Amino acid sequence: MSEPELYWEDFEPGTTREFGEKHVTREEIVDFAKDYDPQPFHLDEKAGEASILGGLCASGWHSCAMLMRMLCDGFLLKSAAMGSPGLDEVRWRKPVYVDDVLHVRQTCLETRVSKSRPEMGLVKFQSEVMNQKDEVCMISTGWMMIGLRNPASRESA
Amino acid sequence: MSEPELYWEDFEPGTTREFGEKHVTREEIVDFAKDYDPQPFHLDEKAGEASILGGLCASGWHSCAMLMRMLCDGFLLKSAAMGSPGLDEVRWRKPVYVDDVLHVRQTCLETRVSKSRPEMGLVKFQSEVMNQKDEVCMISTGWMMIGLRNPASRESA
Repeated sequence: MSEPELYWEDFEPGTTREFGEKHVTREEIVDFAKDYDPQPFHLDEKAGEASILGGLCASGWHSCAMLMRMLCDGFLLKSAAMGSPGLDEVRWRKPVYVDDVLHVRQTCLETRVSKSRPEMGLVKFQSEVMNQKDEVCMISTGWMMIGLRNPASRESA
Repeated sequence: MSEPELYWEDFEPGTTREFGEKHVTREEIVDFAKDYDPQPFHLDEKAGEASILGGLCASGWHSCAMLMRMLCDGFLLKSAAMGSPGLDEVRWRKPVYVDDVLHVRQTCLETRVSKSRPEMGLVKFQSEVMNQKDEVCMISTGWMMIGLRNPASRESA
């Protein structure tokens, strides 16, 4: 593995970035649903149209997974990311339909250093998944664990 | 589609059920990670061992997806499920490793009828993903929208 470019110190509360571009295909919606969420409105057009979702649409968990891939490609894979303890909230606001093109709007809300692991920081992000009409399809708020560039300098601060 | 067996009226706050059995394979962990969360500790044993996760382990989003499949097979596919507005919390407590065998412990926390759609109810569940040692790997708390068996009788009540 190469050295990370981004460490905990590089994330500043109040900053917002937009990135990512994910074209959602019918094949991927149905493949994900067959494996993990085989409810009729994620598998079949007619069932989707008959539902309150209004058409064949991606599982909410598929939207989460597509968000994660955009986060990985957008910055996580070049960061000192160490995983996540969890999410404080997920809201599925609008269905993600076949041929939607998604991107991410991410705001850094809060940062702190771990008490138990001084080499590790925590960053709270709000991540919105937006479609090609700039509608917010999904909002996720949660924490990521990210290594510090220079733990020692903070200890002596 | 056949008629649902389970409607909103069948979910009672305070009740807990255990169900599901999911054997987690290395192939599935790596396949999911390649598509949606290609961080090194989800792709490679050595990177997993070098991380705070202690070994090659499933993406937290993969655990969410496996939970959803167990919920579908456990009761959702035979219910009048209409989707979900979101989650109030997700906690990833312990890594899910290769050859873990997962099941679900689910508690119904709260129910109410939708104000805007009297034919629809909401049920708040806490869903714990447990491994073969009965350790809680993940907890998710969120709402599901489920159709009422008999909306009219409630309106006249």
